[in-house]
Amino acid sequence: MQAFVYRLAMNHPGDLSALTALFDAGQLDPAHVVAVIGKTEGNGGVNDFTRGYFTLAFSSLLAERTGRPRQEIVARIPCVLSGGTEGVLSPHYLVFARRPGGPAASSAKRLAIGVAFSPPMRPEAVGRMMHVEMVAETVRRAMTDAGIDDPRDVHFVQVKAPCITSARAQEAAARGASVLTADSNRSMAYARVAGTFGVTLALGDAPVERITEAAMFNDYTVQSDRASISSGVEVDCNEVILLGNSARWRGELAIAHRPMQDALDIGAVAAVLDDLGIRATPQVPAADAVRIHGVLVKCEPDRRGQVRGNRHTMLDDTDINAQRHIRGAVGGLVAGMLGDGRIFVSGGAEHQGPDGGGLIAAIARV
Amino acid sequence: MQAFVYRLAMNHPGDLSALTALFDAGQLDPAHVVAVIGKTEGNGGVNDFTRGYFTLAFSSLLAERTGRPRQEIVARIPCVLSGGTEGVLSPHYLVFARRPGGPAASSAKRLAIGVAFSPPMRPEAVGRMMHVEMVAETVRRAMTDAGIDDPRDVHFVQVKAPCITSARAQEAAARGASVLTADSNRSMAYARVAGTFGVTLALGDAPVERITEAAMFNDYTVQSDRASISSGVEVDCNEVILLGNSARWRGELAIAHRPMQDALDIGAVAAVLDDLGIRATPQVPAADAVRIHGVLVKCEPDRRGQVRGNRHTMLDDTDINAQRHIRGAVGGLVAGMLGDGRIFVSGGAEHQGPDGGGLIAAIARV
Amino acid sequence: MQAFVYRLAMNHPGDLSALTALFDAGQLDPAHVVAVIGKTEGNGGVNDFTRGYFTLAFSSLLAERTGRPRQEIVARIPCVLSGGTEGVLSPHYLVFARRPGGPAASSAKRLAIGVAFSPPMRPEAVGRMMHVEMVAETVRRAMTDAGIDDPRDVHFVQVKAPCITSARAQEAAARGASVLTADSNRSMAYARVAGTFGVTLALGDAPVERITEAAMFNDYTVQSDRASISSGVEVDCNEVILLGNSARWRGELAIAHRPMQDALDIGAVAAVLDDLGIRATPQVPAADAVRIHGVLVKCEPDRRGQVRGNRHTMLDDTDINAQRHIRGAVGGLVAGMLGDGRIFVSGGAEHQGPDGGGLIAAIARV
Amino acid sequence: MQAFVYRLAMNHPGDLSALTALFDAGQLDPAHVVAVIGKTEGNGGVNDFTRGYFTLAFSSLLAERTGRPRQEIVARIPCVLSGGTEGVLSPHYLVFARRPGGPAASSAKRLAIGVAFSPPMRPEAVGRMMHVEMVAETVRRAMTDAGIDDPRDVHFVQVKAPCITSARAQEAAARGASVLTADSNRSMAYARVAGTFGVTLALGDAPVERITEAAMFNDYTVQSDRASISSGVEVDCNEVILLGNSARWRGELAIAHRPMQDALDIGAVAAVLDDLGIRATPQVPAADAVRIHGVLVKCEPDRRGQVRGNRHTMLDDTDINAQRHIRGAVGGLVAGMLGDGRIFVSGGAEHQGPDGGGLIAAIARV
Repeated sequence: MQAFVYRLAMNHPGDLSALTALFDAGQLDPAHVVAVIGKTEGNGGVNDFTRGYFTLAFSSLLAERTGRPRQEIVARIPCVLSGGTEGVLSPHYLVFARRPGGPAASSAKRLAIGVAFSPPMRPEAVGRMMHVEMVAETVRRAMTDAGIDDPRDVHFVQVKAPCITSARAQEAAARGASVLTADSNRSMAYARVAGTFGVTLALGDAPVERITEAAMFNDYTVQSDRASISSGVEVDCNEVILLGNSARWRGELAIAHRPMQDALDIGAVAAVLDDLGIRATPQVPAADAVRIHGVLVKCEPDRRGQVRGNRHTMLDDTDINAQRHIRGAVGGLVAGMLGDGRIFVSGGAEHQGPDGGGLIAAIARV
Repeated sequence: MQAFVYRLAMNHPGDLSALTALFDAGQLDPAHVVAVIGKTEGNGGVNDFTRGYFTLAFSSLLAERTGRPRQEIVARIPCVLSGGTEGVLSPHYLVFARRPGGPAASSAKRLAIGVAFSPPMRPEAVGRMMHVEMVAETVRRAMTDAGIDDPRDVHFVQVKAPCITSARAQEAAARGASVLTADSNRSMAYARVAGTFGVTLALGDAPVERITEAAMFNDYTVQSDRASISSGVEVDCNEVILLGNSARWRGELAIAHRPMQDALDIGAVAAVLDDLGIRATPQVPAADAVRIHGVLVKCEPDRRGQVRGNRHTMLDDTDINAQRHIRGAVGGLVAGMLGDGRIFVSGGAEHQGPDGGGLIAAIARV
Repeated sequence: MQAFVYRLAMNHPGDLSALTALFDAGQLDPAHVVAVIGKTEGNGGVNDFTRGYFTLAFSSLLAERTGRPRQEIVARIPCVLSGGTEGVLSPHYLVFARRPGGPAASSAKRLAIGVAFSPPMRPEAVGRMMHVEMVAETVRRAMTDAGIDDPRDVHFVQVKAPCITSARAQEAAARGASVLTADSNRSMAYARVAGTFGVTLALGDAPVERITEAAMFNDYTVQSDRASISSGVEVDCNEVILLGNSARWRGELAIAHRPMQDALDIGAVAAVLDDLGIRATPQVPAADAVRIHGVLVKCEPDRRGQVRGNRHTMLDDTDINAQRHIRGAVGGLVAGMLGDGRIFVSGGAEHQGPDGGGLIAAIARV
Repeated sequence: MQAFVYRLAMNHPGDLSALTALFDAGQLDPAHVVAVIGKTEGNGGVNDFTRGYFTLAFSSLLAERTGRPRQEIVARIPCVLSGGTEGVLSPHYLVFARRPGGPAASSAKRLAIGVAFSPPMRPEAVGRMMHVEMVAETVRRAMTDAGIDDPRDVHFVQVKAPCITSARAQEAAARGASVLTADSNRSMAYARVAGTFGVTLALGDAPVERITEAAMFNDYTVQSDRASISSGVEVDCNEVILLGNSARWRGELAIAHRPMQDALDIGAVAAVLDDLGIRATPQVPAADAVRIHGVLVKCEPDRRGQVRGNRHTMLDDTDINAQRHIRGAVGGLVAGMLGDGRIFVSGGAEHQGPDGGGLIAAIARV
């Protein structure tokens, strides 16, 4: 098996012309596409419809090119979009594809991609241990799908988890079940943490006994440097895209990751590049830049109102959402070291990497 | 003469407690204060009143402590605020002070501060060659005030230039004079460029014959890597703060500057630090970070809609002003290398540094 | 011929479930749909992708239900969306349908709907008299399509006009032609005025000799109380939806319109309702409210910075676009009188109604 | 005693020139000023510094004109600012003054103004019954100050209540006391409701037994149509401005108030005007408009996401704060009926008027 990652530009959230061109040129077989992770130019908030727009356009194209119904595409190919290309960030999407092939030529570990979906989840499970365990189980299946045995070979796990809507809360109530919260925004935060804890559990990133509901939004030492979670109304099960390295895969791509201690942790960027054999001095040289196929970052405005002792104003800004602030800042830092604005930077990183920080993963030709 | 630069935090735009404490402790004589450059937490736009708020609080404090009328403080101490602490940027202000003293102990050049005000300027001059020449003349007087003979020893010139308001346009019309534009925002952009061209002319940063009205917003090779210009309704003359190095000054501080080629030019940050004997690897070590007394950056969202070939979305965002975007991104980059969010980052950098880029200056103990 | 107008709610910009339900129930034949005017919940600016999202979802649905290709739907059914449901405004869309039928039962004039498309327009025509004349010609054809002979029977003309993009400007330059401006935003404003002047010319709302390029953004007495114009990159010809009353049409619906003198002109709202036999005292009684099938408003933040002598702050707000401000305010006023937030309120009303004001049209059962 | 209300325009949040002019002309004695309620052009959120700016400028002016220290002015003259002049709202402030004088000429009730301050309140009291009772007690003293015996003669009570900051929470913890919440924003909402319940209790607007902590954010039938509450870090006691009618006062002014059922309740606006002998048909005639000295409105985006069955998008807008949305919409409605944008419209109206609605008060010459 061989993994391919295409980093494609878009002119607007409904623009799939770059992917269409790959299909038309025969460079990529539509049937080999297994997942998409992208960065659209919305605000990244509840009323960011650029994600739905892209998904509609993408699933329509895949349906047309594969001859399968659009709903089947939606149900089988995770398409995780993060809105918000603040500052120098550039709208783009990563298309992950798998091409079957003989055994790996060498014993070197190469990029492996796994995908899995949990069964539909009831709203009363959202944000609870039941949710954590369901995500953990799905992550394990994605590992199997990726051909990875050792959790240490996993470097990035993207989860999209369902949240609670008014309608779902009412449906639960009608069954006599009660949900964690009827506040949709709050349920999304809980769903993100449950997803993170699920990854943490599956990968062994924290002792099992500390992965509890009580630890959520409380014990920030329970975290995973490899979990990237989003939550949305558009899914009713947990979707998982798992990226790692495996000797069962061949090709030229590999992935690495590092925690970011805070929003100024430029050292983490240098370190993850170094893991892939790329030196930034301080910027990645052009010859190496072309080897990079994708960069994925999670970050968070420090909830304590300071970064290294200096007050920041992100959390008190009524005009600009705090997540937009942090994406712009961390995006500027990472893009500056890479010399490239095509970075996936996503906020809402509770328990995903160190408190007040986050994580970075990169995929490159080695 | 010895220059001092105090980098002070503020809890809100009217908070002068840090400066008050310096006065109360006898560490700084209010009479030695000659200028302020600060970063407040407003939006940086026309309706950013954090600048006026700070100025009222600052001038009231200085009036009280020096016994001079508040209006005299306003007229003699330039107080240049840039609104907008996007992302990791931290609200702070630099207080520039001069203490008289004997001759310099060594022949080494040390930080020199000059201040000058032009005569009141008529609105019909704004944005025209008359404006350019008036700024150039004021910059030359600020050089004299700073004891700098060689323009190459100048590293940063902050100018605050008047713009055209409806009232001023009408007053001009009543005299039979005509203004460049009655659009206040547009006049501010022209005033910035006229100010920049004035600095360019005074410092010899471009051939005299190319510094023309026709070159404004047109020939971007006419630029200065040392000009930082703002424009506002609150001034009716051109205020200049000039920073450089001079053998006539003593002390431990020195200043350096570098152009930034674009918003990803991390190399410029490394270079300006290197000029001051500081190595970032990739971050400035803590031991060196305390030597830094101030960092000043100008930047601009690339007007061509791309950064190094990748589309950016700053100019088309109806929700977040483009200058807020770029300050957040470049601020994230510079703060990341320095490990410190107390960076003065200002937008509106037309002709100030390379097109699509800007400039960086830093003051440090050497 | 009989006209039908369905006012349908949407849960998000890609939600066509209400229209789908009408089709499924057999209440509306997809083949009878001739136009859509809607209000989506984006920001209404350049980066508002809710309009494109709705259009993709709508055209996909119509293609599926009519068996015609999606591109043909886009080319034959004008779909004009205005982004921005500020304040109490509620996302909704008006579906205009025509059902063939015998002669009108009475001599009373009833709602008539006409649609027309101009030929593709070259970019160098945008905003010039050529554009004005092309729109005028298209409006005349829409009148014919609507079966209206007397321009006085026209009450609302929605035009969607092409603008100039960088690509189009370059294509023109390659042919040796020059465009009015290469600034896309500016070209949209010019396209709106050219569209307005086209309507003004076709309907005789101003003397022919005063409808000139020189009058654009200058002589605001050249205006039409019946013109509602938008401009966008997504069209390359001028699309026209014309609404009026005609004795050739039967049914129960009629339309009326009134100019709004300024953003406080509550009298205009009362008057247009009165024209349709509805009394607001001060609110429309529930029994009459159900008779209303659609309300269409154009408005504008007064460019002189005041409303009836009091300063407004819409034009100087760096955080909220001025058009969002005015839509929210005028929407609140009109919705308050109607007791209903489903009002189409669109900004960018240069020359569309009195300077600083706008216009209102309403469709109701009589 | 006679009450005066001056409605003054401001050119920016630090502009007191209109009040200065009244003082200079001898029309108003600075010693007679007892309170200010104003509308500044900030965003109305946590980072709205226009309120502090105005307060600094106002207290400096009063200190200068009365010869009293600035801190005494701040401690004795309530100055309540609401940020946000969305849409057609115009920045302005109401100066309330009392001039001593002989007995009322007639038995008619005229505008009465009372002011009172609670003792400093400990942070652990914020949002609890202790807070409710302290506000109730302060309101009663303000009634006495206003010479009003019957609670039915009270028409508007403005309260500014302290909230919990991190520093205050820590100070409480050090004493072994625990605060309701350490989340500053949340504490402000609780402080508003405690203030509202205090007014409700003092005026008898709900049965005593239902005014409980359990009713907060829960039983919305516990409300007052006369309570207008704000909360902020800048106060450490509860400040009360109480407006009503009393036969002990003379002059020409009177006040009336009405609940608003929802954001579309135009009938409430008509009713409150009618109470003051003013007919809106639908707009207030110019001759009557000059009789109006002040209009005060509280409103709220309906927390259930709908207004009269139609979805609104205020609560899900990541770009524009919901309070900015509702102020713009309700401001547009009220200003439209009055023909005047100088309306004080404030959000955050939990329990202040009907759920999803709010209230309106008006002061006019009778």
